[in-house]
Amino acid sequence: MAVNLAEPTAVLPVRGVELAATAAGIRYQGRDDLALIAVPPGATAAAMFTSNAFCAAPVALARRHLAASGGQLRALLINSGNANAGTGSAGHAAAVQCCQALAEELGCPIEQVLPFSTGVIGERFPAQRLCAALPALLAGRGDDWMPVARAVMTTDTVPKAVSRRIDTAAGPVTISGVAKGAGMIRPDLATMLAFIACDARIEAAHLQDLLRDAVAQSFNRITIDGDTSTNDAAVLLAAGGPALAPGDEAWDALSEALTAVCVELAQALVRDAEGATRFVTVAIEGAADIEEARAVAYTVAHSPLVKTALFAGDPNWGRILAAVGRSGIRELEISGIDLFLDELPVLRGGEPAAEYSEAAGAAVAARAEYTIRVALGRGDAATALWTSDLSYEYVRINAEYRS
Amino acid sequence: MAVNLAEPTAVLPVRGVELAATAAGIRYQGRDDLALIAVPPGATAAAMFTSNAFCAAPVALARRHLAASGGQLRALLINSGNANAGTGSAGHAAAVQCCQALAEELGCPIEQVLPFSTGVIGERFPAQRLCAALPALLAGRGDDWMPVARAVMTTDTVPKAVSRRIDTAAGPVTISGVAKGAGMIRPDLATMLAFIACDARIEAAHLQDLLRDAVAQSFNRITIDGDTSTNDAAVLLAAGGPALAPGDEAWDALSEALTAVCVELAQALVRDAEGATRFVTVAIEGAADIEEARAVAYTVAHSPLVKTALFAGDPNWGRILAAVGRSGIRELEISGIDLFLDELPVLRGGEPAAEYSEAAGAAVAARAEYTIRVALGRGDAATALWTSDLSYEYVRINAEYRS
Repeated sequence: MAVNLAEPTAVLPVRGVELAATAAGIRYQGRDDLALIAVPPGATAAAMFTSNAFCAAPVALARRHLAASGGQLRALLINSGNANAGTGSAGHAAAVQCCQALAEELGCPIEQVLPFSTGVIGERFPAQRLCAALPALLAGRGDDWMPVARAVMTTDTVPKAVSRRIDTAAGPVTISGVAKGAGMIRPDLATMLAFIACDARIEAAHLQDLLRDAVAQSFNRITIDGDTSTNDAAVLLAAGGPALAPGDEAWDALSEALTAVCVELAQALVRDAEGATRFVTVAIEGAADIEEARAVAYTVAHSPLVKTALFAGDPNWGRILAAVGRSGIRELEISGIDLFLDELPVLRGGEPAAEYSEAAGAAVAARAEYTIRVALGRGDAATALWTSDLSYEYVRINAEYRS
Repeated sequence: MAVNLAEPTAVLPVRGVELAATAAGIRYQGRDDLALIAVPPGATAAAMFTSNAFCAAPVALARRHLAASGGQLRALLINSGNANAGTGSAGHAAAVQCCQALAEELGCPIEQVLPFSTGVIGERFPAQRLCAALPALLAGRGDDWMPVARAVMTTDTVPKAVSRRIDTAAGPVTISGVAKGAGMIRPDLATMLAFIACDARIEAAHLQDLLRDAVAQSFNRITIDGDTSTNDAAVLLAAGGPALAPGDEAWDALSEALTAVCVELAQALVRDAEGATRFVTVAIEGAADIEEARAVAYTVAHSPLVKTALFAGDPNWGRILAAVGRSGIRELEISGIDLFLDELPVLRGGEPAAEYSEAAGAAVAARAEYTIRVALGRGDAATALWTSDLSYEYVRINAEYRS
């Protein structure tokens, strides 16, 4: 079902980063469901976590470990099949147990291990099975990102991995990363995870700034169904190599390359969204400020009526207009609104555009990818986000998952 | 598809209220699509309109006429098949033309006529056809609400009409009303309309207070897909009869009866929601304040993941918990959360309840009607709202409507 999304090719190894995956039998049979991303002593890490108040046990623990370690990490331990969310105090103990077991194997303090879990919410977490698989996991370490990209998948249909390389005065720096989606929550699978590493040496505080800026332009600009999972996280590791800091000649290039990696991964999540048949950009411009632009963009992108029309290939601009109108913007005047579907004008100054016809609208709406552009005529702020449609398959996936 | 919703029976006439419907050929063939609700001179009216900034031409005009008339109305003119929304200045002129034509027939000022339209957005409004049907409409006036209940339907599957009668010192007072849904927006049909009348004499200002209170407890407590239409409105007419005012012995009974009418109509909209297979009450208690209770209730009720689980009959409480967690409440602690499905405890103090089992949960989730109850443990505020599920049929109706 994925929209214009192929299997990754040419994912570049990152010096110092050890990758592994194995089958721990957490929920799935006959596939890898446990992954490791390890970095050498001295590596730094930055992370951003879900804003859901009921974050899962591993998220709470990862947040605490990251703070306690001062961003000096050694390993990310990631499982699919069970989110270890809604599991109460037993779930917390299970996450601690898994981190402790890996820390002992690696000979590092427990706070240098971050746990990540994705899968069903509310089922007991099988810490024993996970721990029993650690020796096999560690024995299989290599430099290939693809086993990790596959092991973290839940019901994603395509693994997601992206690389960029930049040149610096001290030599090339590679950025590679993987992500998994694939709804906001795949079934009740608890959702978006992204793990990215580069072979540079970067202070943890600077790394956090880099990640925050990149996430703002990528993972925070996608929406599939508006649900925020209990387990979302994005992690950036700097495994060591050329030392880079803000002000360096290569810093902007690094930031741009990281953003490009995050954008490509984020768009891949939308392309492989639950039941997606379209990849649609919602571009809002002429807003009074960025909050206003975002409010309108999210209201349009979350509207079930807009999303079912996208699925149908129906240029149903009345639904777009209705969504803009209910987005909570004060003193919004229809006379200021321009609306376009790709290059096709639909409304100008709130009045039907002469060039518009149902046939012309239907031709755009039949495209697998297009842009809904709304100009509000109120100021200079603009934003764009990426979303998918609401299809039968979305309902099937989310209704039938546990049946 | 409607959930426990039968055709209305025993809808009571309201003294002084004349009702009629006819086929104007606005969009549908072979069915009534134009309705009239007329009241005698001296009758008063109150109305509440959509908060959508892009309200349709008839809504803008109705608002203006209501203000200009001081609530002294003679007629409501209602059509289905075309919402006259997104139609620019031509749409406004069309609405004026229709009101003017009816005002001339009735011999009243134009501002004593309110227009209402429901149907497709963005298509030219056929004012000529509507005006041509006015003589037939007026000739058919009677006291039966059912032709009006049927004429205002778009893709509702069941007409909605409700009555209550109360006794006052000056004799009985009857309240009857009709409503149409049936998504928040049926296709891009622009949505909820409710027209209610009573045979009492009530000052317009008091009538507005009565309506506001009743709507807060009924139409403002339902949600189907979170979309707010450009054409929503609720109107209350007092056609004359016993004079009633706040402080009268019968005033509270009147208010309660009106609220009961509105609640039954509002619940009927949800029961007949697009593709509905469940009627679910989302009850939030223990909130710090009412805004917090509402925020949690709407987040749960709007979650596509919760709604697809309702459809599946899946007791997927992890999705409910995740929705509560992302509802924007500050310092929400999972340790304060109790969660119930009808009488079945799922979580107590954030920990899995011992009594819960998947089988017990599945037994509740298989019911056509049940209550999701969440106690937040933060205060005394509570609210409840009514919602439906997200089914294949919802997607089909909204995707295929114009294809």
